[in-house]
Amino acid sequence: MNADAAATPSHTELPVIADIERAAASLRPFAVRTPVLECPRLNEQLDARILFKAEALQRTGSFKFRGAWTAIARLPEERRRHGVVAFSSGNHAQGVAAAARLFGVSAVIVMPSTAPRVKIDSTRAYGAEVILYDPAGEDRDAIAERVERERGLALIRPFDAFDVICGQGTVGLELAEQAAALGLEIDELLCPCGGGGLIGGIATAMAACSPTTRLFCVEPEHFDDTRRSLAAGEPVANEAGHETICDAIVTPRPGRLTFRINRERLAGGLVVDDGQVMHAMHWAFAHLKLVLEPGGAVAVAAALAGARPLQGRTVAVVCSGGNVDADTFARCVTAQ
Amino acid sequence: MNADAAATPSHTELPVIADIERAAASLRPFAVRTPVLECPRLNEQLDARILFKAEALQRTGSFKFRGAWTAIARLPEERRRHGVVAFSSGNHAQGVAAAARLFGVSAVIVMPSTAPRVKIDSTRAYGAEVILYDPAGEDRDAIAERVERERGLALIRPFDAFDVICGQGTVGLELAEQAAALGLEIDELLCPCGGGGLIGGIATAMAACSPTTRLFCVEPEHFDDTRRSLAAGEPVANEAGHETICDAIVTPRPGRLTFRINRERLAGGLVVDDGQVMHAMHWAFAHLKLVLEPGGAVAVAAALAGARPLQGRTVAVVCSGGNVDADTFARCVTAQ
Repeated sequence: MNADAAATPSHTELPVIADIERAAASLRPFAVRTPVLECPRLNEQLDARILFKAEALQRTGSFKFRGAWTAIARLPEERRRHGVVAFSSGNHAQGVAAAARLFGVSAVIVMPSTAPRVKIDSTRAYGAEVILYDPAGEDRDAIAERVERERGLALIRPFDAFDVICGQGTVGLELAEQAAALGLEIDELLCPCGGGGLIGGIATAMAACSPTTRLFCVEPEHFDDTRRSLAAGEPVANEAGHETICDAIVTPRPGRLTFRINRERLAGGLVVDDGQVMHAMHWAFAHLKLVLEPGGAVAVAAALAGARPLQGRTVAVVCSGGNVDADTFARCVTAQ
Repeated sequence: MNADAAATPSHTELPVIADIERAAASLRPFAVRTPVLECPRLNEQLDARILFKAEALQRTGSFKFRGAWTAIARLPEERRRHGVVAFSSGNHAQGVAAAARLFGVSAVIVMPSTAPRVKIDSTRAYGAEVILYDPAGEDRDAIAERVERERGLALIRPFDAFDVICGQGTVGLELAEQAAALGLEIDELLCPCGGGGLIGGIATAMAACSPTTRLFCVEPEHFDDTRRSLAAGEPVANEAGHETICDAIVTPRPGRLTFRINRERLAGGLVVDDGQVMHAMHWAFAHLKLVLEPGGAVAVAAALAGARPLQGRTVAVVCSGGNVDADTFARCVTAQ
């Protein structure tokens, strides 16, 4: 989403732990409590405990279901029954489509025609109406706002919204509980970052449940707007004209609400390149038996690349999604 | 393994539920309690609850760790410290190698030179000494027995051994508990079958914990020795000269101990062909985000192919392993 769309979050206050706990309670019957996976051989090699939070195993194949469901659940009944609209390159699209279906309401999803085929097909399979636009020539926000206005649909924002952040924060709540069940305290947490909703929610949860954990966002090379914004102390945009295979986490600049959280809560940002991401996808395939999409593998890539010192530490690594075309996946895992 | 090697199991009595419960208690700190995954869209399409038991997420990438660890744990201390030997095409190899390492004892693994590269490399990475033999020209059992005799190593059999069956049976114990936690009773269970140790252990557990569940073994075309043996009422061997991509579950005939269990406990056998297996691997990739090897995907293949009527039922489908070369996996998931 661009800066204009980010300018009108539904709340101006920031979520607190009680908001995330409420989201967790209402999500429980619908979302998967995703497992924490470990690779004993990696732990041994690194002399560390690396906890991979497998959100690729979440309903719809990414964490986005958590936020989408929470946002739709919290709409006033009268507003919800008219249906919802979202704009997304794919994971939020599927999250909104699947959540809308659970509520029995219609969903219109505005997607770029360049989105991975599997994401477009899957969004339609959840029963949503998909409107494709040309990202090079058409204005996504103008299309979404027209649909919102003309059809009276409720807009479900992908990250810069109070309720969405609360839903994503349930990942952090689970991680803190899962680490405690293993008798561990999480020293550091690495998390993929596009607009910052996932790590913002997780950071809010960890501040209450695991306050000594240091959090790092991980972004693709040339799309490290959150890392640079944290360093600058104010939101800065990405330079145009670059490409990455990490389609799920390409955003022009941090959200307003998410940046307010992340500025307070994060220890810093890490950057990985596409080659490191492909290596991480292969590694997760071979050692975790987990399918990760490029954007879902950036935190794994940072851990494997030694972007942080790991020895002697317990480190949580969020694997945020697994929606990837078979051809792309095959290319990535055989390129090693 | 061939019939000679199957002729000397370490016990002649059959395991009972207390044996499996003891195995579960001692395995708990070392084995993964693998999650049950669901695909809400599949459940909706089939009007069923399909519970996929994700043993590909087990330590070493397959259920084999459970049995190998249990068998090594139950060796007399004096015997264990001299080390262990196993013969295996790959998954039992990794299970034995990883378990031996946990006990700090040496492992020698006799493997066919035709085994998937990833299985040979991984077995070595666990610290085992790997002896490769030519399956067309050399006698695996003779090699293993020579190693056992000359070096004084304890032979860890792949399936036809009391303790191994107890370890594999912990999959069934977990499944019964996981279904109960979901408020479900498992009507039917589909499980990959090579020598029959996994389904034999599961059947022993289910007979006590979920006695109304009907169990079906699933085998590759031309390697359906257990299905035909069940029908004949006595062990019958596979015809030579056939091939399959399901390397993990190619066995010449049922084990003695496993067949005695399975003859009593199974409702029947199902057969899938390689094309159905490749489709199942793609489906698990796309919808479960799970990496399955061919032999680990046969029960998924049977479920998707409609080999059993599923409507209105709760069906457990065991996904037994995920150790597959990247090239093979890429070929399988892009062939659809």
